Amino acid sequence: MRSDVMLLDKITNYIVKSKGKQMRPMFVFLSAGMCGTIGETTYRGASLVELLHTATLVHDDVVDESNYRRGFFSINALWKNKVAVLVGDYLLSRGLLLSIDNGDFELLRIVSNAVREMSEGELLQIEKSRKLDITEEVYFEIIRQKTATLISACCGVGAASSGAEKATVDLMKDFGEKIGIAFQIKDDLFDYGTAEVGKPLGIDIKERKMTLPLIYALKNASPADKKHIIYLVKNKNNKADKIAEVIEFVRKSGGIEYTKTVMQTYYKEAMEMLDIFPESEHKTSLMELVKYAIEREK
Amino acid sequence: MRSDVMLLDKITNYIVKSKGKQMRPMFVFLSAGMCGTIGETTYRGASLVELLHTATLVHDDVVDESNYRRGFFSINALWKNKVAVLVGDYLLSRGLLLSIDNGDFELLRIVSNAVREMSEGELLQIEKSRKLDITEEVYFEIIRQKTATLISACCGVGAASSGAEKATVDLMKDFGEKIGIAFQIKDDLFDYGTAEVGKPLGIDIKERKMTLPLIYALKNASPADKKHIIYLVKNKNNKADKIAEVIEFVRKSGGIEYTKTVMQTYYKEAMEMLDIFPESEHKTSLMELVKYAIEREK
Repeated sequence: MRSDVMLLDKITNYIVKSKGKQMRPMFVFLSAGMCGTIGETTYRGASLVELLHTATLVHDDVVDESNYRRGFFSINALWKNKVAVLVGDYLLSRGLLLSIDNGDFELLRIVSNAVREMSEGELLQIEKSRKLDITEEVYFEIIRQKTATLISACCGVGAASSGAEKATVDLMKDFGEKIGIAFQIKDDLFDYGTAEVGKPLGIDIKERKMTLPLIYALKNASPADKKHIIYLVKNKNNKADKIAEVIEFVRKSGGIEYTKTVMQTYYKEAMEMLDIFPESEHKTSLMELVKYAIEREK
Repeated sequence: MRSDVMLLDKITNYIVKSKGKQMRPMFVFLSAGMCGTIGETTYRGASLVELLHTATLVHDDVVDESNYRRGFFSINALWKNKVAVLVGDYLLSRGLLLSIDNGDFELLRIVSNAVREMSEGELLQIEKSRKLDITEEVYFEIIRQKTATLISACCGVGAASSGAEKATVDLMKDFGEKIGIAFQIKDDLFDYGTAEVGKPLGIDIKERKMTLPLIYALKNASPADKKHIIYLVKNKNNKADKIAEVIEFVRKSGGIEYTKTVMQTYYKEAMEMLDIFPESEHKTSLMELVKYAIEREK
């Protein structure tokens, strides 16, 4: 990632220092190991998805005006928005060039499709959150595009890089999609206080993001309750006590249990897809990784 | 450019309505016609560079907090920064997919390199403008990366799409680079009041962008003058009368004439590179297009 521009070197060093769990490259390596052989292409694939993911996070922090990321200051907080947008573009182009220069065109196709779907998913969410008229169907479409697409791409890239045939690559993409949906549902549950340790609650409600627990609760509410809760989300989403009222309403209506059941269904369906692969160290680790992500408490 | 997301359809329609001169696709078509045959790949190449250019402009308006673009409201002014960053990413991914799906890998390599260089160039400019210690050498490096790279990519993409051999593609990339440098110098001259019709003056000075007329003037100034002018650019760049003083200083020192001479040199060198091509309608049109861009008064 070296560059002749000092400012860029400084920022990429900072990003490397503040790196996250790197779950996505792990999906690439474990999928490759399970489906075939981990090779040079796998390493490039893992770099590509991590660069893309980092680029997305840097842009996300600009659009959300976040000042922190993973316990560090965000790039936009330290260097202003202008720099952050450009750094995001730069990281993305470096990832693409790595693949282009090595002729990894199948990887490129998988990843570019993911970029398109992710930006579409975010925009769909913005469009819908204005109206609050979101159905379960739209919710699943949003989280599929927004989160699941990248996990799906990781598993597909891993399989493709290992020399697996097209049917296996497609199966791994489907596996990753289901896992990604389960992850996002898990994340959305945290907003309603399901984590053991104290994560902040009600952030999604504050931003008028309609997630599955609330969607389910509203669908099963009386017309009067529904009207009242939508009014709170729409007009009182800056008041802590009103947000707490919405959370309490969702809990009482069984929205949490329903959502947990749906998550478990996706989790189980995904795991069953791995039955066709022979037992291996990589398969066991992949299953452990997924289990960790689904059962994590923070 | 159709999408299932209504908001995206609305925005892309708006972008098409407010499109610019489309000079970049023209470079693609005319380069292709002069070097070989205009084909399907040429059309995709032209779309790719225009999508990339549009994505860059949308991101530029976010980082510059501009409310207008080509006499229309900017995307960020109408739909907020968040949407604009995402739309930029979306446009870029659509352009890439168009090339990937059709196996235009040579085009992809040229264009991804351009994305990397453009973001590097912008970041180099940000780094340097903090210090005001910019030399002619750094100035040329910045405008080469920031502007010339994309024109260079357009000419290269056009040539590559027409079936030209590598030496011709490289020659056209060099031609485009020289032309791009001349364009940017022309643009930088406008800031010092060289246009016939009223363009706003001193915008670059306000943003502490050191361009060739000022760099030349400072290099040839007495130590006292130099210190005074740098003080004005650094600390008084929000005062109209001080900006006017800087402009006047540049004019008197011969910075305008020097800059015009440099621009003409790049222009001439580029034109001479076309000597090896036989006369053709496309060659004549390409030369006309460059002439228009260099001699335009707004």
